[in-house]
Amino acid sequence: MSFRASVLTLYPQMFPGHLEHSLAGRALERGDWTLETVQIRDFAGDRHRTVDDTPAGGGAGMVLKPDVLAAAIDHASPRDDARPRLLMSPRGTPLTQERVRTLAKGAGAVIVCGRFEGVDQRVIEARGLEEVSVGDYILSGGEPAALVLLDAVVRLLPGVMGNDASGQSESFEDGLLEYPHYTRPAIFEDRPIPDVLLSGDHGRVDVWRREQAEKLTRERRPDLLEVKKKTPKG
Amino acid sequence: MSFRASVLTLYPQMFPGHLEHSLAGRALERGDWTLETVQIRDFAGDRHRTVDDTPAGGGAGMVLKPDVLAAAIDHASPRDDARPRLLMSPRGTPLTQERVRTLAKGAGAVIVCGRFEGVDQRVIEARGLEEVSVGDYILSGGEPAALVLLDAVVRLLPGVMGNDASGQSESFEDGLLEYPHYTRPAIFEDRPIPDVLLSGDHGRVDVWRREQAEKLTRERRPDLLEVKKKTPKG
Repeated sequence: MSFRASVLTLYPQMFPGHLEHSLAGRALERGDWTLETVQIRDFAGDRHRTVDDTPAGGGAGMVLKPDVLAAAIDHASPRDDARPRLLMSPRGTPLTQERVRTLAKGAGAVIVCGRFEGVDQRVIEARGLEEVSVGDYILSGGEPAALVLLDAVVRLLPGVMGNDASGQSESFEDGLLEYPHYTRPAIFEDRPIPDVLLSGDHGRVDVWRREQAEKLTRERRPDLLEVKKKTPKG
Repeated sequence: MSFRASVLTLYPQMFPGHLEHSLAGRALERGDWTLETVQIRDFAGDRHRTVDDTPAGGGAGMVLKPDVLAAAIDHASPRDDARPRLLMSPRGTPLTQERVRTLAKGAGAVIVCGRFEGVDQRVIEARGLEEVSVGDYILSGGEPAALVLLDAVVRLLPGVMGNDASGQSESFEDGLLEYPHYTRPAIFEDRPIPDVLLSGDHGRVDVWRREQAEKLTRERRPDLLEVKKKTPKG
């Protein structure tokens, strides 16, 4: 069974977007994963196809109606659907590489893209939507976030990266940011490649890279080291 | 002067991607912002148009060559270019709504999209690239990250959201996640809208929303409250 993504959106034309190209696009063509879009507006009950209404209690913006969204979810994801139901939202739990790996091992994902001011809280609770955030910034809607999440997941699906072992030693995989990279030429604008990398001594190279990764993480992301301390492995 | 984005990539066909539609797309058509893509491969010096090479010191993956990328950057962004030069990378400083606001007030951005294992460290230093991360997960390349960054920036450009005041009371704008939203119907699948929101008492509504926002932030993102404590305003 290949990974099945169902995306609920008011802008189905945004998909597959950049996922049509490169790794994800070739995997989509091969059938390593499938992508279905569901137009939420098709589930509006009135003849004006209304999907939003003003917020209870007042305030700016519009709120996605619970009845319309619930009908769209029930269509895309029947009660016995094993796939997690995600709602892309800046209020959500931050997406991590660990969550991405878990999603990639599963049957797929149902992804709801919010627009307007937000989604009625009752449909989030009634349909068990897991709110996921791709970062601490505000997007025009859930669609760009859904595309980022799918990109991260799809590259981990079996066969997608082929024999590329570069999935192994990456930022976050060992709780550290990645060490700096160098390649030819040996001297670029008077800047040489660090001697140790040209020494041929794999032990010294490994030690240097580890030190660089730790230094970089300490400088830029001390928060990652805090998490590491709290969750020792082994 | 409208906001000018120049994106350096091996996959120019991924742009404008989802930015062709909705708010960002209409703003692009109106000329509220411009998007130029630069094919990094056009700056390869050899007849095979080689852009990458094996990592110095060994290891998996390929590294983007410094000379090729530098030539592409110099073409897109001459020395007196006032725009920041960003490199989308999981090693970067996490993107925040504050950084997005600063970018939206500026002249534009030069955005380098990495692929392969990474980019030669020397070109990052020699061209003053600011490494920016959209989240703690690994993407297939910098392109999906660049599209997310541009989406976040473009919606804040003058005129793009029109009279939509919903830019004001959003997650992160006051250091808290946003309170829950409700709209009609008053009862959805036996779930009523909280009474306070139907009371007509704006003072009580404001207090309730503030409490809900604080509760949600405490539960899901205590890290945001820590940051708030450290940087008091006013």
